[in-house]
Amino acid sequence: MNNSAHPLDLATALVAMDEDRYTGRFTPAYANMVGPFGGVIAASMLNAVLLHPQRMGEPAALTVNFAGPISDAEFQISARPSRSNRSTQHWNIELLQDGEIAVTATALLAVRREGWSVQELAFPEVPAAEAVAPTTVPVPIAWVKSYQMRFIDGLLTMNSADSSDSSLSRLWVRDEPARTLDFLSLTALADVFFPRVFLRRQMPCPAGTVSMTVYYHASGHELDSYGQQHVLACARANQLRNGFADQTAELWSNDGKLLVTTQQLVYYKA
Amino acid sequence: MNNSAHPLDLATALVAMDEDRYTGRFTPAYANMVGPFGGVIAASMLNAVLLHPQRMGEPAALTVNFAGPISDAEFQISARPSRSNRSTQHWNIELLQDGEIAVTATALLAVRREGWSVQELAFPEVPAAEAVAPTTVPVPIAWVKSYQMRFIDGLLTMNSADSSDSSLSRLWVRDEPARTLDFLSLTALADVFFPRVFLRRQMPCPAGTVSMTVYYHASGHELDSYGQQHVLACARANQLRNGFADQTAELWSNDGKLLVTTQQLVYYKA
Repeated sequence: MNNSAHPLDLATALVAMDEDRYTGRFTPAYANMVGPFGGVIAASMLNAVLLHPQRMGEPAALTVNFAGPISDAEFQISARPSRSNRSTQHWNIELLQDGEIAVTATALLAVRREGWSVQELAFPEVPAAEAVAPTTVPVPIAWVKSYQMRFIDGLLTMNSADSSDSSLSRLWVRDEPARTLDFLSLTALADVFFPRVFLRRQMPCPAGTVSMTVYYHASGHELDSYGQQHVLACARANQLRNGFADQTAELWSNDGKLLVTTQQLVYYKA
Repeated sequence: MNNSAHPLDLATALVAMDEDRYTGRFTPAYANMVGPFGGVIAASMLNAVLLHPQRMGEPAALTVNFAGPISDAEFQISARPSRSNRSTQHWNIELLQDGEIAVTATALLAVRREGWSVQELAFPEVPAAEAVAPTTVPVPIAWVKSYQMRFIDGLLTMNSADSSDSSLSRLWVRDEPARTLDFLSLTALADVFFPRVFLRRQMPCPAGTVSMTVYYHASGHELDSYGQQHVLACARANQLRNGFADQTAELWSNDGKLLVTTQQLVYYKA
């Protein structure tokens, strides 16, 4: 499938109004319980930068703040470079709907040069993607069906007998239908994890990401070379306290390269 | 010592120009190799929000992007609320010098309510602060002298014989002179770690934080109750690659509470 016809690309498509402003509308394929899947919102914020004529380099860091609800209607995204240096470029991005800011973001692009490199975090010992059966995730949410998930640990069952003192999830995951990996899909995948409070309690409660940060460690060329492979996605919480929980996560290539490290702060009411 | 007279408070002091704009100037006590210590810049960005008349709640998340150099001269910080909800408030913050944006930031404040809570990450097994001697850090940088550091692991020696396959540092640290813990000092402490590339190689190279994100897990009241105690600061890198390294870190109270989780992306040339 050509990426441009893929549901993820339809969901994150933007139309330029002028140099710094775009319009878009999320699609039912990535609907969440309320509003759209945060990963697709984050990918759309990044896409405004990737499409921008002043763009220089590739994504290195992205922080997205989910400030207000988004309804099933057209939205506007503004993206402006805050500062362009020789090899780095900082961006300020806002999503507005009905004249109100609903999402804010900052992005760092960089022109990366090869140099001394070392991967300190070890690739987890897990079975290969092919050795894990695709999981039917028992959650009636549209965006979940837009991914093929193969859970190794930490499946959400919402059966309180499965409540756990560990919020670790590990799964092989790819877009459904399959799609060649790029910065857009990696950004959305960085938000593929259910709120860790659900894992701990295995019971529903109001919860949603309020801020997420993504660090990109691979080049676009390298992502392209992985094609439609699954990535290994691992997440856990450190602290869940008085309505806010953190989450630390990694996305790995199937040959053990650390593609993304990401963290988020998640609101919950329990 | 009253906090208002402490060198950290002098370094992060801001004067309101109008509701959304402040002026300030960093002090020699927090000078870095080039420009000011990033932790004090981050604390100043947060301070613009804390001082703002529209502020609601306490810090939950802060992302600071170091976009350009800052010279030893007056700067302006603008802080405006992007969106205020019932219990959360999102902020956009920019530091300008000579008409150019040098730092950008977003902050999330929240009114937190007591609820179901659990700390998943275990407090590391380390000797108590009193059992570790204060370390003379062999680095001729002003801001380092503004902290008392008691290293347990991962001291920077810049002796290449000490190069290591682990970038882990663990230290007890407090302001020097001692100062009651609050959101400003915690924010600065979140940046107290030397670039992990120095730890791995134990040799100098150009390096500096380009983006940092701080999640605050404790209330201001709780921080106040810790007084002038040391905090345990732990940091490590996951990936150092082609000029950018990530860093994941935690700040703990001396009774084992996780106060802050923080991550940053660090530029290096090696």
